Amino acid sequence: MVKIGIVGVGTVGLSVVKNLQKNRDLIRARAGKEIIVKSGVVRNLNKKRDVNIHLTTDYKEITRDPEIDIVVELMGGVDEAYEVVKDALKHNKAVVTANKALLAYHRFELQSIANTPFEYEASVAGGIPIIKALRDGLSANHIQEIKGIINGTCNYILTEMKKGRDYAEVLKEAQELGYAEADPTFDVGGFDAAHKLLILASIAYNIDAKPEDILIEGIENINLTDIEFAKEFGYEIKLLGIAKKIGNEIELRVHPTLIKNSQMIAKVDGVMNAVSVIGDVVGETMYYGPGAGGDATASAVISDIIEIARGNVNPMLGYKKPLESEKVRLKTSDEIETKYYLRIAVNDKLGVLEKIANTLAKNNISIESFLQKPKNGYVKLLFSTHKSLEKDVKKAISEIENFDFVIKPINFIRIEG
Amino acid sequence: MVKIGIVGVGTVGLSVVKNLQKNRDLIRARAGKEIIVKSGVVRNLNKKRDVNIHLTTDYKEITRDPEIDIVVELMGGVDEAYEVVKDALKHNKAVVTANKALLAYHRFELQSIANTPFEYEASVAGGIPIIKALRDGLSANHIQEIKGIINGTCNYILTEMKKGRDYAEVLKEAQELGYAEADPTFDVGGFDAAHKLLILASIAYNIDAKPEDILIEGIENINLTDIEFAKEFGYEIKLLGIAKKIGNEIELRVHPTLIKNSQMIAKVDGVMNAVSVIGDVVGETMYYGPGAGGDATASAVISDIIEIARGNVNPMLGYKKPLESEKVRLKTSDEIETKYYLRIAVNDKLGVLEKIANTLAKNNISIESFLQKPKNGYVKLLFSTHKSLEKDVKKAISEIENFDFVIKPINFIRIEG
Ligand SMILES: NC(=O)c1ccc[n+]([C@@H]2O[C@H](COP(=O)([O-])OP(=O)(O)OC[C@H]3O[C@@H](n4cnc5c(N)ncnc54)[C@H](OP(=O)(O)O)[C@@H]3O)[C@@H](O)[C@H]2O)c1
Ligand SMILES: NC(=O)c1ccc[n+]([C@@H]2O[C@H](COP(=O)([O-])OP(=O)(O)OC[C@H]3O[C@@H](n4cnc5c(N)ncnc54)[C@H](OP(=O)(O)O)[C@@H]3O)[C@@H](O)[C@H]2O)c1
Repeated sequence: MVKIGIVGVGTVGLSVVKNLQKNRDLIRARAGKEIIVKSGVVRNLNKKRDVNIHLTTDYKEITRDPEIDIVVELMGGVDEAYEVVKDALKHNKAVVTANKALLAYHRFELQSIANTPFEYEASVAGGIPIIKALRDGLSANHIQEIKGIINGTCNYILTEMKKGRDYAEVLKEAQELGYAEADPTFDVGGFDAAHKLLILASIAYNIDAKPEDILIEGIENINLTDIEFAKEFGYEIKLLGIAKKIGNEIELRVHPTLIKNSQMIAKVDGVMNAVSVIGDVVGETMYYGPGAGGDATASAVISDIIEIARGNVNPMLGYKKPLESEKVRLKTSDEIETKYYLRIAVNDKLGVLEKIANTLAKNNISIESFLQKPKNGYVKLLFSTHKSLEKDVKKAISEIENFDFVIKPINFIRIEG
Repeated sequence: MVKIGIVGVGTVGLSVVKNLQKNRDLIRARAGKEIIVKSGVVRNLNKKRDVNIHLTTDYKEITRDPEIDIVVELMGGVDEAYEVVKDALKHNKAVVTANKALLAYHRFELQSIANTPFEYEASVAGGIPIIKALRDGLSANHIQEIKGIINGTCNYILTEMKKGRDYAEVLKEAQELGYAEADPTFDVGGFDAAHKLLILASIAYNIDAKPEDILIEGIENINLTDIEFAKEFGYEIKLLGIAKKIGNEIELRVHPTLIKNSQMIAKVDGVMNAVSVIGDVVGETMYYGPGAGGDATASAVISDIIEIARGNVNPMLGYKKPLESEKVRLKTSDEIETKYYLRIAVNDKLGVLEKIANTLAKNNISIESFLQKPKNGYVKLLFSTHKSLEKDVKKAISEIENFDFVIKPINFIRIEG
């Protein structure tokens, strides 16, 4: 028998309790042990909840209960969750968590103090078993690249915008549907995706980076002109979390990205998530499914509990021993080298295009394709470039923004692949 | 240190040796142990091979070597491989195999005698970690349905046929490209996919079925008319391995299938594989990647070796204890209930359509859509039906084939979803 305590009996916590009960026989057979939820921690004991387990507001009742084998942290947040998980580890409990924010900041500290199994499948891409895929299924590979659609809200908004709908309108709808929070910044600003990317990156590259170390841009500036450009040139616009290794340098970035619509990950629409991984031995594999929702997330949480009940002890971030080869270095955003799409609104005057083209050329940026769209009273110039350095692109943009015929600001989207 | 012996140093075996060497530092860090290939078994010692391990023709030198921890079976075939693996298990070796044929016939016997870890990730869908996904990642779920594109040769042929190319021509090309064997029956006839489907089904449903127990149809009868029909009605034609549970009845079948092109798995083209799984807790997840090739397959084989080196002992077919709930029953093919597409070539006479429609109606088959295509000298009638029983469809077909205006045989394709 395995006894668990759940710290946080909200959306995910309730789903975990419910599904452990619903699939009890099957889970016992697969785990080899009966899994019993002994108790749960909540903030508000008066809230009506459809569970009949012992509830408390004091997490130490669980983290220090000698009968409990696994502490399942589903409360969210960083600091309190960190205290809870540390206390659980200190008291030799195995830990399961779905908390990407916690791991984005503290995964390496937690790894260093964990002497018990520590699983966190649900922290990235909800129901998709991407942690196990990367940590176990692809363990033979040097990971060359990860590209993830790991925020369902953003993918939903971008998918709806393809139908010609406005960003603000779709965001409002996403909030009504429960896909987006009342304050959507965390999702649409790319921060949630960044947390998940950092978790994937540490399994791939054993790299300890924090959200503030990496490039994070959201989808707030994408408009219908960009969507039309994408369609016209055979691209999709997706908010991607990207991790790449080139030599011993790592790129980690989250931003809206133009990707060729022939790529498998470009075909992932709506709230669904997907992660494409390129390994040096296997090539590209991709993992697709629901990235959120109580039940989908509970599926991942319970799989972690079963893994621990089976007696398996996985290396938390995928490394049983330190990797002794060359140290990797995180690139700054200035050093990113990729293709770019630029959207420049100008007042139509003679010589405008020439001046812009000259400024690009002077900054080592060569143009791949060009489209001109007339608008009421002004003109939109849409460029895509060949591979260029981010530093050069930013310099060119600020120079072009200084021309009096340019209506600021200039927007750009990075192009991948 | 973990010492392995490889029985079969061919395409996959050589890739395993090569990549263990190439990624040695990384693999040591991930596994926590150095992995050493001690020796290999081949048929022909005189063949030139690019490895410097001890080679022998006597597998017992490996299965009974007290220094060897893991026997990696990569020789293929059923009977000899069965002897080798049994001997390895008897001598307390852990086993890793990529051999789907072996497992399609003997997975339950092997499970019953294995007291050591037994891994077989590479046996289904090559480099995609689908065994681990199903066995570990989705372990909380009752599996409602599996749909797999698990034969790259067939998917390549069907993808090329969408360009208007002829079956025979594309098959020949696939043979030249090394995607298809000289005798392609095993692939295009659906048998290879059936082996893989049976492996997935035992993890999902703990069901011991053999290839001869299930419906297996290949892609040999698909022609360009079918491809055109599919396009016109928004379908793709894919060879799918399908496993479904409805109540306590299981359907297992491999056949060309019409699926809506909006489904994620319909978008998988070329030699790539993909498996879509529907779980009662998580919903649909899908796994995509290369289904064959020495390196892709070696990625899976090495991940199994690492899993064992890490000290994990997974339940071979996903169940640590027997599942005590209701026994499942395998449906016969007559009992399949799905939608059908019928292709009927007729000599154009008055009343032809009426007679066919009457025969369908008499057999409880109602028509969903209908298309008539004139050909040189005859007419093709293409029907899709609402959900019908396979038994009824077969009876209707044989009755319609008896009409003198029908050019035999009538072809049909099952429609999924
Ligand atoms: N929801 C999803 O789709 C999803 C998907 C992937 C990952 N996750 C992650 O899963 C975790 C839980 O998410 P959720 O959606 O289930 O959140 P939720 O519905 O807000 O539930 C949080 C639970 O934790 C309790 N809690 C919060 N702070 C507490 C404290 N200081 N002391 C005691 N109890 C406290 C709450 O108690 P009260 O009920 O009394 O307020 C509530 O029961 C988060 O880390 C989230 O990022 C969620
Ligand atoms: N190739 C793929 O893409 C792929 C993908 C997934 C799974 N698999 C599976 O992996 C396994 C190996 O496939 P493969 O493509 O590597 O086959 P292969 O190239 O034909 O290699 C087979 C190896 O086994 C040896 N062998 C065969 N029978 C033997 C016997 N009776 N005694 C001793 N040695 C014997 C052969 O020796 P000689 O070299 O001396 O002839 C050869 O080294 C098969 O089960 C296959 O289904 C392959």
